Amino acid sequence: MKNLSNSGNSKQEQAENLAAETRADHEAGASTTFSPSDRRAFLQGAAATAAAAAATLAMPRWAQAHPGDLDAIRAEVEKRHDESVKRLQDWIRQPSIAAENRGMNEGCELTIRMLRDVGFQQATKIPTDGQPGIFATLDAGAPRTLGLYYMYDVKQADPAEWSSPPFEAALVDKPGLGKVVMGRGAVNQKGPEASFLAALHAIRGAGKKLPVNLVFVAEGEEEIGSPHFPQVVRRPEVLAALKNCMGIFMPSASQGLDGEVTMTLGAKGVIECELISSGERWGRGPRKDVHSSNKARLDSPAWHLVEALATLVSPDGNDPAIEGFAAKARPISAAEKKMIADAAKRLSETESKKLLGVEHWVHDVGWQEALELLMSRPTVNIEGLVGGYTGPGGKTILPGKAIAKLDLRLVPDMTAAEALAALKAHLAKKGFGDIEVRMTGGYDPNSTPADAALIRIETEVYRKGGVDPVILPRSAGSWPGYVFTGEPLHLAAGPFGLGHGSGAHAPDEYYVIESKNPKVQGMDGAVFSFVQLLYALAG
Amino acid sequence: MKNLSNSGNSKQEQAENLAAETRADHEAGASTTFSPSDRRAFLQGAAATAAAAAATLAMPRWAQAHPGDLDAIRAEVEKRHDESVKRLQDWIRQPSIAAENRGMNEGCELTIRMLRDVGFQQATKIPTDGQPGIFATLDAGAPRTLGLYYMYDVKQADPAEWSSPPFEAALVDKPGLGKVVMGRGAVNQKGPEASFLAALHAIRGAGKKLPVNLVFVAEGEEEIGSPHFPQVVRRPEVLAALKNCMGIFMPSASQGLDGEVTMTLGAKGVIECELISSGERWGRGPRKDVHSSNKARLDSPAWHLVEALATLVSPDGNDPAIEGFAAKARPISAAEKKMIADAAKRLSETESKKLLGVEHWVHDVGWQEALELLMSRPTVNIEGLVGGYTGPGGKTILPGKAIAKLDLRLVPDMTAAEALAALKAHLAKKGFGDIEVRMTGGYDPNSTPADAALIRIETEVYRKGGVDPVILPRSAGSWPGYVFTGEPLHLAAGPFGLGHGSGAHAPDEYYVIESKNPKVQGMDGAVFSFVQLLYALAG
Repeated sequence: MKNLSNSGNSKQEQAENLAAETRADHEAGASTTFSPSDRRAFLQGAAATAAAAAATLAMPRWAQAHPGDLDAIRAEVEKRHDESVKRLQDWIRQPSIAAENRGMNEGCELTIRMLRDVGFQQATKIPTDGQPGIFATLDAGAPRTLGLYYMYDVKQADPAEWSSPPFEAALVDKPGLGKVVMGRGAVNQKGPEASFLAALHAIRGAGKKLPVNLVFVAEGEEEIGSPHFPQVVRRPEVLAALKNCMGIFMPSASQGLDGEVTMTLGAKGVIECELISSGERWGRGPRKDVHSSNKARLDSPAWHLVEALATLVSPDGNDPAIEGFAAKARPISAAEKKMIADAAKRLSETESKKLLGVEHWVHDVGWQEALELLMSRPTVNIEGLVGGYTGPGGKTILPGKAIAKLDLRLVPDMTAAEALAALKAHLAKKGFGDIEVRMTGGYDPNSTPADAALIRIETEVYRKGGVDPVILPRSAGSWPGYVFTGEPLHLAAGPFGLGHGSGAHAPDEYYVIESKNPKVQGMDGAVFSFVQLLYALAG
Repeated sequence: MKNLSNSGNSKQEQAENLAAETRADHEAGASTTFSPSDRRAFLQGAAATAAAAAATLAMPRWAQAHPGDLDAIRAEVEKRHDESVKRLQDWIRQPSIAAENRGMNEGCELTIRMLRDVGFQQATKIPTDGQPGIFATLDAGAPRTLGLYYMYDVKQADPAEWSSPPFEAALVDKPGLGKVVMGRGAVNQKGPEASFLAALHAIRGAGKKLPVNLVFVAEGEEEIGSPHFPQVVRRPEVLAALKNCMGIFMPSASQGLDGEVTMTLGAKGVIECELISSGERWGRGPRKDVHSSNKARLDSPAWHLVEALATLVSPDGNDPAIEGFAAKARPISAAEKKMIADAAKRLSETESKKLLGVEHWVHDVGWQEALELLMSRPTVNIEGLVGGYTGPGGKTILPGKAIAKLDLRLVPDMTAAEALAALKAHLAKKGFGDIEVRMTGGYDPNSTPADAALIRIETEVYRKGGVDPVILPRSAGSWPGYVFTGEPLHLAAGPFGLGHGSGAHAPDEYYVIESKNPKVQGMDGAVFSFVQLLYALAG
């Protein structure tokens, strides 16, 4: 079964989005047949021939592409398996949580040390108005240069919700799946990122020259909406380095439990904001909570918020009604429609509904149209409502303040700045100009052409490996790829990588280290997919 | 200055309502002139003559009404001051919080012990489907019988918000006000209730016979909306005892900082309920939180709630728009209008607005009309909104559930049952029949005629004491007086008592023990006001 849980989720949001599906998928996937033995245990056994055969079976088929170099590198990947796993565990054990301003400097410096260890000639902390970013370069003297985007921060984690402590990075056996590392950041994104570093170590360890030069940029605020990432990328020396790149990618664990991969050619933009209605700003109703009996003689900031919200969408709550909001939304093209139609045939509506826990799509549309809406429709969503008394039972107050947390998803050619301005203008026009709109994060959509060299080569590498990716016009989630795909760089950008994990933003996040599922690569297979990509890009 | 903070607030809600005003009043009242010495310290001094003179000044003037008995009783009140304060402190130190199911049995039994100690011949715990109530009788062989309504539960308290721990009942000097006992329940209602018990002790201690018989009913669930109180009052033996009463009252600290008292001839009814919109019940949208990108293809229970809420009120959020909700609302009569017009002249609009922290009444009406609305207008109020992510910043989810906490205030001749039915029918008709309406508490309005004997005598007692009460048709808050004023008892019911306190439902709740403000009675004055009332009712 294929579903959007595997949609090339380089971006944590997309991962989170679809992680719910992936997790359920895992449970639903109990009937999948698994390989009878643990590959890693097999490799470590006495029978070298048997081990080699098993490795050949378990590794992607395209591992044969450059037999000379690649055989040596594959052996090095396996030799360094424990070292690679330990590097990932050490990284997970250093939490860096921007939302809590926890371990940020330590996480930044650890990342820089790892870059230097693997051969980056320079790796520099880039200060911003928020948490620092990182800029690093590895000049291999190669003709081509590849860009890399990393995040070194992770989402918050409540240890009480985890079966294994989130910052212990324990190796855990997941029935039917194999050995996984469990911890916050395991799949989002330290696991895939560590696998890419392991690929560089293996190439060097095998005595080979890296086939492409690397330009590396990272941020520590991805989980809070990347508010300062432009301050990293827009520095002259960073722009100068990036503009030589053939494209930029983020290491990702892109495989679903069925081994399939969904690639997305961009992502929606997003605005996260709070709408704050208060007596203080309104000049009507109370400034603080007062007894609810006063409703008879006082205006209510909470009702004011409800009335304002009701103007933002159609009466069924589904279609944005903010004036001018979607004016520049580009309808999907015939080519994109075709892509979605092809995808609709390969993806299972039944499974998707089951995994989301829903019975109906919006407007009761069919599967293909639901996918079209997902890719192409700007949205106005309520993430949360909080006002007045929120505990158990009731409390007889008329609250002085109420807040709605919204996210607005944007498609090309909308921009975050224009969408925010439209929201504010709409509220003012409808008589709600006093309601404060506090943007907490967000950025523009991003888009990469299907025929970009990076995308073509990634697709070829997957196909050579026996994985025929589902290709979608864009992710319905968001990541700050606009800094690369937009002005002035116009780079192709997208995630890549074999391997599997789940639980981004959720408890028990994991990344597969040793797979018992023959359709899914473990860490060594993921590492080797990055080796393959680097050689394919060079060639 | 008079304001509604002093509106005979036997009911905690009204107290809370108006407590905000009272607290601010206290701060605003810094310019009030205070007596130069602490009366209690004076009384405890060596100069007996001076002490007697001071007591005469400080006690209400009507304390002279029955010179023989009353002088002896007044002396006994003073003699027993420390004992009375300690009884109150012991009571506060036993929290009974129905909302937390904390100390309920202990609080019930302590109350019963106090009743037996003061001469009630029988005092019985009455089991209900919730927390137990109490029924007690004191037969003094008197011709007349008075009913008493007590609550032994208190509101929750967060110690972190208090300057003195809420269950320590510390004696604290409040600048300009005097010595107060600070603790949860101090004014709502243990302070006034303990003062009434002290009145009974003083009468007995002075060797006098209680001038009226007493029938006592109490509940332990007042703070959670009195859901089981009818199970206490409607028992045959309780009804039989109550039907002999000339009326029922709740001891109250009715004085504002200016010494004035506002009496209310009833109270609005109330429904507290939660409106719960969920994908589970709706059958549309997700059953659990999913990634917000799915808004493009999924319905949203949070938007569904917002749209439903918007149908409940006029577009400005002020006037109920629930079909049939207020069909039986009785317009205020000419006599009630006159009462309010008189009150409007005596109450200060400026102070009321200042204390509520507002600049405008609803619809920008004037003062008299604002008071009319407060007394006469049914309301639909949002107490709280809670759905999805409610923490700091944002979280990209499409919530599977969202809740609005409402209270609806009812005026005669509306009933809670009919109002709830109207709300449910309205939602169903508007297409929101899936939204669960969970009533968490509430009851009918209550009303007592201005010419009821109890009210007339209370008014006379106040007037003899030099306090000319403002009389209002009803409180905009609510208390479960309908069990007494409605079928089958048709008793007069209302709060009574001198004394002052504030902070009901808020931190630093207090009740004045020794007043430095010559306009406000301390605990002994409050105790003596109850002695006076009992003698006036007997006579």
